[in-house]
Amino acid sequence: MPNPVFAPIGLLETPWASPADCPRNGRQPNPLPECRAVVEERWRQGLQGLEGFSHLILLYWLNQAPPARLSFTPPFDDQPRGVFATRAPFRPNPIGLSVVRFLGFGAPGVLLVENLDCVNGTPLLDIKPYLASTDCEPGATMGWLEQHRTR
Amino acid sequence: MPNPVFAPIGLLETPWASPADCPRNGRQPNPLPECRAVVEERWRQGLQGLEGFSHLILLYWLNQAPPARLSFTPPFDDQPRGVFATRAPFRPNPIGLSVVRFLGFGAPGVLLVENLDCVNGTPLLDIKPYLASTDCEPGATMGWLEQHRTR
Repeated sequence: MPNPVFAPIGLLETPWASPADCPRNGRQPNPLPECRAVVEERWRQGLQGLEGFSHLILLYWLNQAPPARLSFTPPFDDQPRGVFATRAPFRPNPIGLSVVRFLGFGAPGVLLVENLDCVNGTPLLDIKPYLASTDCEPGATMGWLEQHRTR
Repeated sequence: MPNPVFAPIGLLETPWASPADCPRNGRQPNPLPECRAVVEERWRQGLQGLEGFSHLILLYWLNQAPPARLSFTPPFDDQPRGVFATRAPFRPNPIGLSVVRFLGFGAPGVLLVENLDCVNGTPLLDIKPYLASTDCEPGATMGWLEQHRTR
């Protein structure tokens, strides 16, 4: 099978200088910091019509993640879990995903957002509108993570 | 900025042989077909602990998508929209995302799921547990797509 070739479309600006500084998830900091998704000029035409969406899905490259580990014991747990049953960054394909609140444009190509948890300078791969009709599952059960649920 | 190097971890099996056969989204078919995410053997240890999650997020490579178009008029709309304000496949980085219902394992490494809308044989990039605590935004507004909301 051939491999996909992707290229960052911009950068994420957050308050966290290193992975060790990052919160466990983007809804833990109180107050929530305002973060920025800065899209390169050549891609900005693709942002047309984003106004009016209250939430977006950002996909980004976890380029500072350690090499993939298929199984590990999370710091807040007592037994090994497969990496696909976690949101840990050291995945075979280190693509991060955050559902963010979209506060509007701070400047052309600059999206103001809340709920990010990644390190400053993280390369942005994609922006998708969050659709409550297909992305929202309020009754979803959380398996082994249920007991560690935040918020 | 360097480019990420990703590699598929498996394949998605769906009833749709070509992009033209695919439904508009994974919740439109009635009844919903059972689809399969088949993970290569070398990555299967990473699936440990996935039982108990009712929903997963699958990321996949839209390898049959046409070249990226930054702006286009959707078939069900009357004016141009930026690609990042849509879920269209012809994105700068063609990574597809589906929130799927996880029905369990059909065999080792074979996940039975509902709600996929991609073509049969689509390369799988990542599996994440869906977390209602951070991924669910029932009140999210859908901008220009509100009037075209499905289900």
